[in-house]
Amino acid sequence: MLAGDARAIARAISLIEDESPGAADLVGAIFARTGRAYLVGVTGPPGAGKSTLVDRLIAELRKASRTVGVIAVDPTSPFTGGAVLGDRLRMQAHASDEGVFIRSMATRGHLGGLARTTGDAALVLDAAGRDVIVIETVGVGQDEVDIIRTADISVVTLVPGTGDEVQALKAGIMEIADIFVVNKADREGADRLVSAVEANLALQTYGEGEWRPPILKTVATSGRGVAELVEAIWRFRERSVSTQADRRRIRSEHRLRELVSQRFMDHLERDVLASGELRAVVDRIAARQVDPYSAASDLLHRALADSKRV
Amino acid sequence: MLAGDARAIARAISLIEDESPGAADLVGAIFARTGRAYLVGVTGPPGAGKSTLVDRLIAELRKASRTVGVIAVDPTSPFTGGAVLGDRLRMQAHASDEGVFIRSMATRGHLGGLARTTGDAALVLDAAGRDVIVIETVGVGQDEVDIIRTADISVVTLVPGTGDEVQALKAGIMEIADIFVVNKADREGADRLVSAVEANLALQTYGEGEWRPPILKTVATSGRGVAELVEAIWRFRERSVSTQADRRRIRSEHRLRELVSQRFMDHLERDVLASGELRAVVDRIAARQVDPYSAASDLLHRALADSKRV
Repeated sequence: MLAGDARAIARAISLIEDESPGAADLVGAIFARTGRAYLVGVTGPPGAGKSTLVDRLIAELRKASRTVGVIAVDPTSPFTGGAVLGDRLRMQAHASDEGVFIRSMATRGHLGGLARTTGDAALVLDAAGRDVIVIETVGVGQDEVDIIRTADISVVTLVPGTGDEVQALKAGIMEIADIFVVNKADREGADRLVSAVEANLALQTYGEGEWRPPILKTVATSGRGVAELVEAIWRFRERSVSTQADRRRIRSEHRLRELVSQRFMDHLERDVLASGELRAVVDRIAARQVDPYSAASDLLHRALADSKRV
Repeated sequence: MLAGDARAIARAISLIEDESPGAADLVGAIFARTGRAYLVGVTGPPGAGKSTLVDRLIAELRKASRTVGVIAVDPTSPFTGGAVLGDRLRMQAHASDEGVFIRSMATRGHLGGLARTTGDAALVLDAAGRDVIVIETVGVGQDEVDIIRTADISVVTLVPGTGDEVQALKAGIMEIADIFVVNKADREGADRLVSAVEANLALQTYGEGEWRPPILKTVATSGRGVAELVEAIWRFRERSVSTQADRRRIRSEHRLRELVSQRFMDHLERDVLASGELRAVVDRIAARQVDPYSAASDLLHRALADSKRV
């Protein structure tokens, strides 16, 4: 995998996606060899043309001889099967290029945890020597924001002509954008959308030398504006070294807290509580016999008092 | 607050929204008096007309003399200020009606935690005697799915004519819907969208007597179809008593796990680690000197060994 073998990378990511017991050992073993890749997050509402844009981005990066890994986070259900289809369609275009590795990751019905597995999958691609890792997510929910914070730079893709320009700017998307892309810029309303984003940016004050998110126009289907997008990404990378270090620290802290919490819960259920005991507490909460705060305090005290057993 | 006083309710929700220390005591004190209200979740993509639909829903419920509480979850940033504006616009229409309490809740830049505060805010409205609590969220991300799972029934609102019908069905939205609403049904493409949803439902098998999500057409601006929506909600409520009990149990478990994790982390930082020690570990992870899994194990063992200090 460290040599960049595609099958080995795929297997490693599957370990992580399945949350196998070996996943922690894997990340532990490769972690010292990560931190070299540049992580580019691409997000935006459904229908904004993100997939086409990412395909063009790959082509542009390959022209510059950069190796690319793509993680397409697709919260599509197993029910509709969209993630798999998307994966195959993408694969075809770059199937013969060893410098491109594409992987779709779907939620598989688990709530939460996708930001975690996405981050670990990016570590695999990083350790495998990919120069640039693109993380593509749909939507503007909090989980997507979490995933995008996994990246070193966030590209927010918007689309004109839905008549909902203002809506598109909602949902915390303004804060996470390092670059705005108005895709399908040949459509009517593109300039109006650029103005709307511009007006929102004008509300924010930027300090001397601080990065102000540029608003780029692209037509991903024809490739128009994609070279300029790549330039803007490199410009951000060069100018924002301290921002990047801060983000990586925040990401590390988030990850650590999450892991500690998760392991404590595992300990509580495995070593402290009798089988079925957690369920009995849950039933008492559901029946309004105890409130969740008191129940949580009680469980915590028991876990800590019982720790000699570990 | 238990007597239904609007100002007291508003103050109680503010306590929860600000994550004040008193919030846990408040929920503990009122918890035994909750569980009576019926929680209706309304979600869908931006621009689907959810707010207008919820306004009509309120009117319909008021006709039937039901008291209503609305929690509009608006992940709008403090930066754009949209949540506050939305709140005021909504308030005007029902300002003179004491049977309607509307509250917008925004993320305030916190990631995560919104599902938690939304759930607790619903408990306040429940204890205050509201018959129906509508929880409205934008988007289709995981966090929204979490919020919607806070509800007893999930109404998924779709809109025709965006040319992205298939996209609208992505993002796990099929699984969470108990009722589909095709709003703006006077627009071209409404029947095509109904067919697309229908085709997706046809992939699923439903057991004898199992609820099959109906697909309703509404025009929220004129009120068309809203009475039928209310009927469908009550039909679901009557037919799905066991589903509702299961959901409330899942919700209780989720809440309990979250609270235990959170309290353990508080204990770790406050009682076990020296000031600045967590930050030092984070710095070592960011510098790739230790991997997050090993660091987490180490912290967990220290917390458990140190528990005599509690």
